[in-house]
Amino acid sequence: MIKAYAALEAKGKLTAWEYEPGELGRHDVEIDVDYCGICHSDLSMLHNEWGMSSFPLVAGHEVVGRIAALGADVKHLQQGQVVGLGWHSDYCKVCSSCGSGDQNLCSTAEGTIVGRHGGFAEKVRANASAVIPLPKGMDAKTAGPLFCGGITVFNPMVQFDVKPTDKVAVIGIGGLGHIGLQFLRAWGCEVTAFTSSDSKAAEAKELGAHHCINSRNAAEIEQAAAKFDFIISTVNVKLDWNLYLSTLKPKGRLHFVGATLEPLDLNVFSLIMAQRSVSGSPVGSPATIAKMLEFAVQHNIKPVVEMFKFEQINEALAHLESGKARYRIVLER
Amino acid sequence: MIKAYAALEAKGKLTAWEYEPGELGRHDVEIDVDYCGICHSDLSMLHNEWGMSSFPLVAGHEVVGRIAALGADVKHLQQGQVVGLGWHSDYCKVCSSCGSGDQNLCSTAEGTIVGRHGGFAEKVRANASAVIPLPKGMDAKTAGPLFCGGITVFNPMVQFDVKPTDKVAVIGIGGLGHIGLQFLRAWGCEVTAFTSSDSKAAEAKELGAHHCINSRNAAEIEQAAAKFDFIISTVNVKLDWNLYLSTLKPKGRLHFVGATLEPLDLNVFSLIMAQRSVSGSPVGSPATIAKMLEFAVQHNIKPVVEMFKFEQINEALAHLESGKARYRIVLER
Repeated sequence: MIKAYAALEAKGKLTAWEYEPGELGRHDVEIDVDYCGICHSDLSMLHNEWGMSSFPLVAGHEVVGRIAALGADVKHLQQGQVVGLGWHSDYCKVCSSCGSGDQNLCSTAEGTIVGRHGGFAEKVRANASAVIPLPKGMDAKTAGPLFCGGITVFNPMVQFDVKPTDKVAVIGIGGLGHIGLQFLRAWGCEVTAFTSSDSKAAEAKELGAHHCINSRNAAEIEQAAAKFDFIISTVNVKLDWNLYLSTLKPKGRLHFVGATLEPLDLNVFSLIMAQRSVSGSPVGSPATIAKMLEFAVQHNIKPVVEMFKFEQINEALAHLESGKARYRIVLER
Repeated sequence: MIKAYAALEAKGKLTAWEYEPGELGRHDVEIDVDYCGICHSDLSMLHNEWGMSSFPLVAGHEVVGRIAALGADVKHLQQGQVVGLGWHSDYCKVCSSCGSGDQNLCSTAEGTIVGRHGGFAEKVRANASAVIPLPKGMDAKTAGPLFCGGITVFNPMVQFDVKPTDKVAVIGIGGLGHIGLQFLRAWGCEVTAFTSSDSKAAEAKELGAHHCINSRNAAEIEQAAAKFDFIISTVNVKLDWNLYLSTLKPKGRLHFVGATLEPLDLNVFSLIMAQRSVSGSPVGSPATIAKMLEFAVQHNIKPVVEMFKFEQINEALAHLESGKARYRIVLER
């Protein structure tokens, strides 16, 4: 039996709960969970906002722990090895996306907490293909959030070939944005933070931003006309996207990793006249996660976390929901 | 004096009119106009829809003709050489876009019919940098529309690295789309035409489309889910863009060269889940125009044109405005 914290129904409080995981699959591993980050998508799943939750639900998909058991066919991982597990826990491995190294875009990829149980538990299982060893020198305590929040902002830098000579910006300095600032700074870019919070502006500079712009101040944003090559938006609120488009250089890209419910209402002339692109992306592939981890160690990039004990999980979830987390929450034993 | 057809006011009929072009600039050439295509943007300028027209206005920016005179510093073109001139008649040559080979994105590039006089005339002038020789073997009579309509659909294929293995689609089979089909077919792609016109469906196949889908038939479009790598939209009417997004593969791109006035109302989840991009672009750079012309000759790609005499210019404009042109109109002497 695996001891876990589960929601028994949508929006229900988490309670101690156990489940029988069955025989370990030949290609699976079992992980002793040491740490688990809490992501906004855990909340969305616990609230069944996307209509794809099944209850009892054990959320948690920013896992760091040690390999406790290996399936018979898993040869590349070792007992006791420190590993991480993110949003995906398996891929089909045979579709065009999987075959092209885009496992994260596999349409039948398995979500760690979709139809199965995640990391708010003593143990979690996953297909070995989705389990990534932590590189030497990585701080296990703060690594969890890299496996979802971190890879979500790192992946587009790889996918869209962001260059060290690029002028870049991050909209929203929160769980994702605060990691994005660090990655982009280490990437060599000139980095601007868009935030509506004055208190975050100073912190954004400590995290790597060269400049800060108030994301709600149209006049300030207008002064950045045609300035950026790449903007990544991490927010889930509607902003004046056409105003942000105008801050892109010719060939610039406005990239979304935060989902707003309202459509983007983009002015097509603004796209056409300067050959601008708008795009979105989810988490990254296992290979990109591994690259990110090495890059993070090399540049000493760490999510800024608030630690809670696993027993305080409901308190931790409430703290995340309040919007006050600075910047990411991690559960520990 | 240069004899031309000018509109004396917005929406006015064109009338015979002359202007004194002054001394020929050292870097300019004068072209004897043999042919001039008519583009929808000529109509927009004649109607002053974009608020940037000055009258009397001589429109026309799909010029094919012979070099009549060369400025003192123009060494790479020759008297009598057959050349073309498109939307741009000069570039600043010193900005970052110009320096990067993206002269078409130069923010101070000069429009052939913006604040100066274009090709609805016996002669037209332009900076030599914007004047492109026709390659050997090119039919001068039908080449004009390549210099605006043609390059507008060819350029994104180069800019966004469309591959011969890509599945592609063209939305709208008109002045631009009918050239796009030919280019994409010659590029090696599997090509689908989206058109609302049954009569155009058969013609689309003759022009290179392997498949046709009715652009207003949601059920038919839904069947093409996750089929395309690249879709280029040439229409200026609002369609169900999120439905079209759903026909893109992971990493697919919906690209706009036709401008709709309504915002695009894109669902950000659809962009995020499959790493899709939406973008736009205007015409191309001189180097890309030259590449396009060579590619067109190699593959015998020609705009399908209806010829009118220059004296019939008002009739020709009315025909374009009626939406009945199949597919592009060219004026000849």
